[in-house]
Amino acid sequence: MPSQTQLGLMSHDELTAEHERQSENYRRLKTEKLTLDLTRGKPSPEQLDLSNRLLDLPGADDFRDANGTDCRNYGGLTGLPELRAIFGELLGIPVDNLLAANNASLEIMHDLLVYSVLFGNVDSDQPWSAKPVKFLCPSPGYDRHFAITEALGFEMIAVPMGPEGPDVHAIEELAKDPQVKGLWAVPNYSNPTGAVYSEAVTRALVTMPTAAADFRIFWDNAYAVHPIVEQAAPIHDVLGWAAEAGNPNRPFVFASTSKITFAGAGVSFFGSSTANLKWYQGHAAQKSIGPDKVNQLRHVRFFGNADGVRAHMAKHRELIAPKFALVLQILEDRLGASKVASWTEPKGGYFISLDVLEGTAARVIGLAKDAGIALTAAGSAFPYGKDPEDQNIRIAPTFPSTDDLGKAMDGVATCVLLAASEKLLAE
Amino acid sequence: MPSQTQLGLMSHDELTAEHERQSENYRRLKTEKLTLDLTRGKPSPEQLDLSNRLLDLPGADDFRDANGTDCRNYGGLTGLPELRAIFGELLGIPVDNLLAANNASLEIMHDLLVYSVLFGNVDSDQPWSAKPVKFLCPSPGYDRHFAITEALGFEMIAVPMGPEGPDVHAIEELAKDPQVKGLWAVPNYSNPTGAVYSEAVTRALVTMPTAAADFRIFWDNAYAVHPIVEQAAPIHDVLGWAAEAGNPNRPFVFASTSKITFAGAGVSFFGSSTANLKWYQGHAAQKSIGPDKVNQLRHVRFFGNADGVRAHMAKHRELIAPKFALVLQILEDRLGASKVASWTEPKGGYFISLDVLEGTAARVIGLAKDAGIALTAAGSAFPYGKDPEDQNIRIAPTFPSTDDLGKAMDGVATCVLLAASEKLLAE
Repeated sequence: MPSQTQLGLMSHDELTAEHERQSENYRRLKTEKLTLDLTRGKPSPEQLDLSNRLLDLPGADDFRDANGTDCRNYGGLTGLPELRAIFGELLGIPVDNLLAANNASLEIMHDLLVYSVLFGNVDSDQPWSAKPVKFLCPSPGYDRHFAITEALGFEMIAVPMGPEGPDVHAIEELAKDPQVKGLWAVPNYSNPTGAVYSEAVTRALVTMPTAAADFRIFWDNAYAVHPIVEQAAPIHDVLGWAAEAGNPNRPFVFASTSKITFAGAGVSFFGSSTANLKWYQGHAAQKSIGPDKVNQLRHVRFFGNADGVRAHMAKHRELIAPKFALVLQILEDRLGASKVASWTEPKGGYFISLDVLEGTAARVIGLAKDAGIALTAAGSAFPYGKDPEDQNIRIAPTFPSTDDLGKAMDGVATCVLLAASEKLLAE
Repeated sequence: MPSQTQLGLMSHDELTAEHERQSENYRRLKTEKLTLDLTRGKPSPEQLDLSNRLLDLPGADDFRDANGTDCRNYGGLTGLPELRAIFGELLGIPVDNLLAANNASLEIMHDLLVYSVLFGNVDSDQPWSAKPVKFLCPSPGYDRHFAITEALGFEMIAVPMGPEGPDVHAIEELAKDPQVKGLWAVPNYSNPTGAVYSEAVTRALVTMPTAAADFRIFWDNAYAVHPIVEQAAPIHDVLGWAAEAGNPNRPFVFASTSKITFAGAGVSFFGSSTANLKWYQGHAAQKSIGPDKVNQLRHVRFFGNADGVRAHMAKHRELIAPKFALVLQILEDRLGASKVASWTEPKGGYFISLDVLEGTAARVIGLAKDAGIALTAAGSAFPYGKDPEDQNIRIAPTFPSTDDLGKAMDGVATCVLLAASEKLLAE
């Protein structure tokens, strides 16, 4: 049952009545004994089915790439040229500046930071381990990014996110500190707000002075080709603009097929300046004789070319756009009038960011959990897991069935209203 | 043309004549304009063909393991239980103590050392980075092992290898230094000598006192199921014996299918104590949401069970045993009487270790290179690439065709005799 009035304007009696309504809704919710999960940005089984042709590719006796390389054997740290050409076109990166790797781009990000800590990067005077490292974390952001920099003992500094990217002025100020060594970024359909970095923000980030010559932007374009509307957001030439600005080594660019083909069995990409790639490969050569080239060939056969990827992503869009629409509809229907919540309306990516009444996010997540609806832990989109306003909840609509998603979101809305009325009554 | 006499016993005139004979052989060799490669332990195309069924596995709509896990999606840091069961049986490791991972066990070794440097292991008081680290390197040994410990700045200490493993007494003495943190080991058909660690050596290594509580043996059983004779060498229960001796966390055990299925597109394994695995996974979880489970399922379908692996390895043996025999025959025919070289006669693995006249290995390798025969760089089987006697050459017989292998080894023998007669004449 929706709240038709703005909770903050209710009299004490009205609020008491609202609280009773939502308590009753919540009691009914619990009787449904749901076990639903909105925690992680995972493709649904139907999305994975779109790539089932991979299960018998490359096919009998097909193991050579266009250069004649036997993909079954050792070697080739750069990955297959054909695959790099396909994604180079999509990402706007020359083939020579793009590597293809194994199933997790997160692994490359992790390793780049480890090599920086142990050895320093091409513009470092000394290993990053020589002094305390600070790292900029646009927030809300991606919890797995923050987990890496936390594990390495970096001091993480939250920077506010807006609809066109993070607060550039704040970043420019912070980058005057030589111990600020880098920035996490998800430029297209950011996790979790869906923000798309504008050209102005992108140019500012690659152009601004930084006290640290070895400052790096971890440009994780995980959702580069993942619009849920007809028109995809542009992919900015972050490497080209950085080079123009005299900072060719600043961006590390990442992408993967985790949300294109199979989440656990895809291929990943790393693009950067020639100097950065040479430095990375020098270290990576210590740990591997090369990526799984058969899986890369499998993906070449599956896609054919860049248009093959685009056509494939249109099929994903058909499956997930209705799920995003359903979540937004339920949020509007149940919470629109109440004014105790706001949310993003992303044009792509895997998440909706829901802000509830300040101080109630953890309570909402706890209520939902007790009703069998799993939400990502409170604060998880913030450095150290600490949401300063206790208001942010990340919604991942893709994995559940439409039916389950509707039930779960309706339940979440009840929890939001119950927690808000509790809070307002206690004030 | 073989030397029928021991070179060291020849008169100056005889030696001059021998030198002229080999110079003539070498001139003829160069006219053949060979381009042959004996450098790396790579499977031949015919060996890779044995696994071509993998190219269309797991097959349409086959993506669930026996537990019902959708192998296409994210998750499962431990790898597929069915695959771990197959290799657990072969390696004598309980499934719960064995992880299955991506295509390179080297990557796990590298990461374990990185985590030790950055954080220390479960028995460390502090990160290894806090003090200089020393590491024991049975030599000749595996160049890629030594490259990792060199890159991390460890002081590498060479320990002599014998036919039953490294010199345990030397190791026991060295392990009295608390900065000695570990040991590289390839227990079965060691790279490059083919040595098989005896039970006595193995038990001594896991039982001996070490000043460092966090001392680790990197037990790289890369050739566990790779005999070239009927009877495979036993696989010692290194984890069980270490636990019996009160040192359950000392061994890190590795294996892979790089030389079973596809060298670049196989699966790897890491076995250790429960505490070690928990520690490893805690760190590994920062960099990946899990290994490529579809490739693991592909391997489950391909092998079926442990007997499937054994039957498959018998086919490899049929292909590579004749190549080892050919190399040994040429070495005996061309160098046997000369007494300027000795070599190992391995019962498995991927290499033959050839010791030439002291002080001539680099010269032999240079001569061979100028005649179009690539050999692994001089000293590469020793820490820092420094063979103290300049005598060791690693021969990798598997990749070339039998015809090429014969030509290359005959050429190498000429180079050995030419370099030896040069050296002896100059003395």
